[in-house]
Amino acid sequence: MNLTAFEITEKLDGTVEGDAKVSIQSLSRIEDAEAGSISFLAHNKYLPYLSKTKASAVLISNDLKVEEAVSTTLIRVKDAYAAFTQLLIGWSEDNNNKKQGVHKSAIVESSAQIAADVFLGPYVCIGSNCVVESGVQIHAHCVIGDNVKIEKGTLLYPRVSIMDDTEIGSNCILHSGVVVGSDGFGFAPQDQQAYLKIPQLGKVIIKNNVEIGANTTIDRATLGATLVGEGVKLDNLVQIAHNVEIGEHTVIAAQTGVAGSSKVGSRCIIGGQVGIIGHLTLGDGVQIQGQTGVIKNIPDGHAVQGTPAIDYKSFYKSYAIFKRLPTIESRLSRLEKNK
Amino acid sequence: MNLTAFEITEKLDGTVEGDAKVSIQSLSRIEDAEAGSISFLAHNKYLPYLSKTKASAVLISNDLKVEEAVSTTLIRVKDAYAAFTQLLIGWSEDNNNKKQGVHKSAIVESSAQIAADVFLGPYVCIGSNCVVESGVQIHAHCVIGDNVKIEKGTLLYPRVSIMDDTEIGSNCILHSGVVVGSDGFGFAPQDQQAYLKIPQLGKVIIKNNVEIGANTTIDRATLGATLVGEGVKLDNLVQIAHNVEIGEHTVIAAQTGVAGSSKVGSRCIIGGQVGIIGHLTLGDGVQIQGQTGVIKNIPDGHAVQGTPAIDYKSFYKSYAIFKRLPTIESRLSRLEKNK
Amino acid sequence: MNLTAFEITEKLDGTVEGDAKVSIQSLSRIEDAEAGSISFLAHNKYLPYLSKTKASAVLISNDLKVEEAVSTTLIRVKDAYAAFTQLLIGWSEDNNNKKQGVHKSAIVESSAQIAADVFLGPYVCIGSNCVVESGVQIHAHCVIGDNVKIEKGTLLYPRVSIMDDTEIGSNCILHSGVVVGSDGFGFAPQDQQAYLKIPQLGKVIIKNNVEIGANTTIDRATLGATLVGEGVKLDNLVQIAHNVEIGEHTVIAAQTGVAGSSKVGSRCIIGGQVGIIGHLTLGDGVQIQGQTGVIKNIPDGHAVQGTPAIDYKSFYKSYAIFKRLPTIESRLSRLEKNK
Repeated sequence: MNLTAFEITEKLDGTVEGDAKVSIQSLSRIEDAEAGSISFLAHNKYLPYLSKTKASAVLISNDLKVEEAVSTTLIRVKDAYAAFTQLLIGWSEDNNNKKQGVHKSAIVESSAQIAADVFLGPYVCIGSNCVVESGVQIHAHCVIGDNVKIEKGTLLYPRVSIMDDTEIGSNCILHSGVVVGSDGFGFAPQDQQAYLKIPQLGKVIIKNNVEIGANTTIDRATLGATLVGEGVKLDNLVQIAHNVEIGEHTVIAAQTGVAGSSKVGSRCIIGGQVGIIGHLTLGDGVQIQGQTGVIKNIPDGHAVQGTPAIDYKSFYKSYAIFKRLPTIESRLSRLEKNK
Repeated sequence: MNLTAFEITEKLDGTVEGDAKVSIQSLSRIEDAEAGSISFLAHNKYLPYLSKTKASAVLISNDLKVEEAVSTTLIRVKDAYAAFTQLLIGWSEDNNNKKQGVHKSAIVESSAQIAADVFLGPYVCIGSNCVVESGVQIHAHCVIGDNVKIEKGTLLYPRVSIMDDTEIGSNCILHSGVVVGSDGFGFAPQDQQAYLKIPQLGKVIIKNNVEIGANTTIDRATLGATLVGEGVKLDNLVQIAHNVEIGEHTVIAAQTGVAGSSKVGSRCIIGGQVGIIGHLTLGDGVQIQGQTGVIKNIPDGHAVQGTPAIDYKSFYKSYAIFKRLPTIESRLSRLEKNK
Repeated sequence: MNLTAFEITEKLDGTVEGDAKVSIQSLSRIEDAEAGSISFLAHNKYLPYLSKTKASAVLISNDLKVEEAVSTTLIRVKDAYAAFTQLLIGWSEDNNNKKQGVHKSAIVESSAQIAADVFLGPYVCIGSNCVVESGVQIHAHCVIGDNVKIEKGTLLYPRVSIMDDTEIGSNCILHSGVVVGSDGFGFAPQDQQAYLKIPQLGKVIIKNNVEIGANTTIDRATLGATLVGEGVKLDNLVQIAHNVEIGEHTVIAAQTGVAGSSKVGSRCIIGGQVGIIGHLTLGDGVQIQGQTGVIKNIPDGHAVQGTPAIDYKSFYKSYAIFKRLPTIESRLSRLEKNK
């Protein structure tokens, strides 16, 4: 990367204020930027950094008012965050050294169909009847079971386990330590109060453009398939149980768990450490605050919080009073004395 | 699998209604069954699917009333879920291709005693003085430390770590990513407010018929042993700290954590994302709702919920009022005005 | 280990009561000690074990009063727990068989600089331009990316992933299954309500004397660095998001998550299953109870509990009333009837 502020402004369809000729070699955060870098400012909260930053240029949203004198070059754009993302993507593509070739220590069963241009890192194992399509990258120490399909351009970081029969779409990213296709947690109680394992004969289907965070686990279905929809983003240490279905473009933050057979709608936003019990149906566009415990179905577009989950605003109204319950009780006692 | 409905009925000691000659090749869920498959119906909630299902036969519990006309063959049994589980187990056993042999890339220390019929997958490492008994299967990329014992018929899926001195009973299943025997979390505060590591010299003992979910972690004891009792079932991403003891046939759902030295009784049912602090004693048959935080001992047979945990029913009574605290306060204000 | 009670007493600067010549070969817990072992008693709660223990000697804090007759040798010290820790450390150092050498199956890129006395276990992979300093131990199946620096004496247990550009200080311990440097969870919403991945171009810096528990995940920064300070101790299954900073000597229990860009102070004590949302600043010496959900900044030295977190004592006062909300409502109803 070596561009002038003017060139970046042209690229992002913005307007420049200040020195348009300053040259930019790197990207930075406004609070710890170095000279020669470009940063961004998308929120009022970061305005105080603007007069102090060493960044040579700052992308700034059109609607932000700057009231102090600023020595850095400003590039005004509609949405500074989006524009900066565009720069990050460009930088990332310029610097992407996509690995190629099959390491000699990779063990591939002879029945597997592996496209010519895949990367298979050291000690990768690939089972029988797998299909690994063009552009797939499977990094060191991944273990792929039998009958697994991995479509075009998908990236597996080191030490991912894909168990038998899994189907993974194109352009997915699975981070290190992910386990897909482990047995669902299904047991039938026996008379002696021991448990009998219910065989888990289903599979996992992951659609295109899914990202799965480090050490996240997705269990295979008892029968049928556990389904992760197109564009779903799962953070680290998430648990998806057997026969769960996650609708497209739903985002789930770290350490959340969805129990067996629950269906989560599309375009939901689910916070971290949320628990969703089994056999529920959550609508589209549902929002769930962090640490919420969901034990009932949720209609489209509702926002919830609390354990058990209730309407988000109702939760906050009740919690505001919870915080001063001692005064509530004092008031009650006073009335009792005076009656 | 290729049986008639009649043959299945005989096997399960049931009674058939409808075409007893229809032939069955597979198992399915009632909501997405295909012709040629057998499904089951154990709960009222799924009754609406019965008239629409394409399943050629449906196992149905004797106590369920069917009021609509049904074209599929019904097989009446005492407990449809249990009967279907029996079919799943049969199918699973028929289709089990137990792997055999020691892969040439497995590294086994010469002092280890390995039974003749074990499976050791690619890149498996086994340390000094280990004992691996008959029928054990250790899949690709598992790492077994020194002085580990693994008894008959136990199955380790790919990428499991068993640290030094661990003892694992017979017929256990450890899913991918499990770590057994990592150091307990023990530190002594020093004067400068730094921490001194307390060496963790104990071990982990896992009894027979235990199942451990993907990416679950079990720490070794400081001294003595962390103990997972016979028949215990741990779901994914569970944390068992040092010197914990889990009683036999206790079931723990995903993302729950048990802190150091706590003793959990037998035949408990513990929900997901539960936290149990250290040095507690929980009785037998205890039930803990999801996301509960346990900070006190629990007597045998008690059910609890909430953080901190209280009696299950009391929690629900209080929570019912929590939800309408704003009206409680309004009522109080009204009284104050009128007094 | 083979010392008399007298020799141990000298070493720990204590005073002996009873048979000073008894010989000690091992360390034990007071509740399951065998003859020939030494145990400790630092808390009243364990006093009942003292008359029954088979331990040949027991370290006991000066301030504990023993009222029953005791047959074992007592070694009186200022702090029995600290003294026992000292014995554990001594025993651990005597028995530490530090592994040496580079296993022939380890794959090390030629540009990596590896000190002469490191241990690289079977199937370890080390990328380009790495620096691995003296005394570092990297156990079987660890995968180290490119441009990684690991300083003196650091220990990686089996199956750890260190992604590109990570810096790890000296004398750290990373347990099995840890992932450091996975992508942060950053996505920009697009018009079609799909998400665009924001490239994560930063890194992770881990300072000296850090311990990281099994299957814990630490994401790389978007830009800049995710920072884990000197002496920090992270338990198992913890999630540290992108651009988080953890101050020195802070301790975080299992299954806690810290969301993006939050700064946690020094010498904090954070319980298990805590959630901390993004972009917060937590002061030094903060204490957070287990399962708390933090959504606001916390000043130095404050203790909090609840979701959302409030002052620890206030939470308990409110929760005490929450538990008897049904009686609060009854009292209110009675007043309403009588008014």
